[in-house]
Amino acid sequence: MVIEKNDKLILLTNDDGLYAAGLKTLLEVMEEFGKVILISTMESQSGMSQALTVKTPLRVKLLEESDKHKIYACNGTPTDSVKLAVNQLLERVPDYVVSGINHGANASVSVLYSGTMAAALEGCLYGITSVGFSLNSFSPAADFSVCKDYIRIVMKKLESEPLPPGICLNVNIPAVEAEKIRGIKICRQSKGNWKEEFEKRKDPMGKTYYWLTGFFNNHEPEAQDTDEAALANNYVSVVPVSVDMTAHWYLDKLRERFGK
Amino acid sequence: MVIEKNDKLILLTNDDGLYAAGLKTLLEVMEEFGKVILISTMESQSGMSQALTVKTPLRVKLLEESDKHKIYACNGTPTDSVKLAVNQLLERVPDYVVSGINHGANASVSVLYSGTMAAALEGCLYGITSVGFSLNSFSPAADFSVCKDYIRIVMKKLESEPLPPGICLNVNIPAVEAEKIRGIKICRQSKGNWKEEFEKRKDPMGKTYYWLTGFFNNHEPEAQDTDEAALANNYVSVVPVSVDMTAHWYLDKLRERFGK
Repeated sequence: MVIEKNDKLILLTNDDGLYAAGLKTLLEVMEEFGKVILISTMESQSGMSQALTVKTPLRVKLLEESDKHKIYACNGTPTDSVKLAVNQLLERVPDYVVSGINHGANASVSVLYSGTMAAALEGCLYGITSVGFSLNSFSPAADFSVCKDYIRIVMKKLESEPLPPGICLNVNIPAVEAEKIRGIKICRQSKGNWKEEFEKRKDPMGKTYYWLTGFFNNHEPEAQDTDEAALANNYVSVVPVSVDMTAHWYLDKLRERFGK
Repeated sequence: MVIEKNDKLILLTNDDGLYAAGLKTLLEVMEEFGKVILISTMESQSGMSQALTVKTPLRVKLLEESDKHKIYACNGTPTDSVKLAVNQLLERVPDYVVSGINHGANASVSVLYSGTMAAALEGCLYGITSVGFSLNSFSPAADFSVCKDYIRIVMKKLESEPLPPGICLNVNIPAVEAEKIRGIKICRQSKGNWKEEFEKRKDPMGKTYYWLTGFFNNHEPEAQDTDEAALANNYVSVVPVSVDMTAHWYLDKLRERFGK
């Protein structure tokens, strides 16, 4: 793959691994927008959040090269993959970091646990326009093709004007037939948490172990301006996500409490 | 350990593992404030962010019990530990989730990668008043005792009034002699990122591998209201951290851009 000066350079990753259907779909669409460096893991890395690999060395291998893309396998987390690509593999800083399409929604507080969104946040920390895409379905038969048109819309918006520093986009797409999707809604992250999160079992030796499980509990089901509400109403949700986690609105009150 | 109705119940964890000096110091101080359930891992889990263990089962073991504390070992991440304790081990929802004392600062964007702060964020998602403490030193000889008085000050503030929903505290303590610490500053998260993050090596078989490394790059060294500035001036930094990552200030502009 030759990257010309005028080519857009796109760094693509995900947290469902190299064989995920959502990654294949996203690669197809990204090739319409530029030259693509894809880096991911052989196995899925769901729920890895922005974890870093600090205790074991990372390895990376070029698996495939065409006129339009290079595909690398890496043994790290999605965040490691972005760091490694930007620092070691790429000739220049990419124009975009694009992550997904995640198999399952990353709405509400799932953004905190998501490896997909962590990769986008990592791109954002490098000052790169970054976006994570997710499909709201855990079904093995999920149809990712419905995402294509909305990915194109979002990328065209980003082409016309980059995002401000410190912000990336979290895009969640309803898993319904294309004609049922009612458009795009700009949203805030819904308040919520996960409940009844463990299944307790006995192993064959009679020892207790636990599997992580549980269900999402939306704290504001009546709100209309959240990502959860958008998805429930068959809208594509777009949330601007900030790498600045400061609760700015609480700074003055906290200063008052501490007398500072 | 008997937990009386009037006892404050404190869930304590960290990401440096059960044998970390900072955890021992924090346990000593927490026993002044209530009954303590400590849960952590045998090995350190630094840089695990808010990662979840979804592919392997979790196990937990009671290691030690006294009048004032119970100590559990868990094989998961800091976030798993908090979830497991709240869902399976505790008789009631704890009054506080307290994490640390981390061996090394968690200022600026390190909050995104930190297992220590992820545990506090997880407590916060359960609606529990939560705080993470870190000492600004990676030295093996780091003296955590300097933290004690500031931990007491923060805990007393939280005793007098809980934090609002969705906010936890990120407390970083300078690693200097007690008399050099100039007090507490309420701060915002500094803008910054990590640079030159890999060391490339050859293994004995001649194959390339990479170690994560690098240094922190403060994007706003002149700012006075950041956690980085507070630490640099020997103040304890206290940042209110939000589980809501929405860039609220950018919502209207983004709606304009998308015509929504």
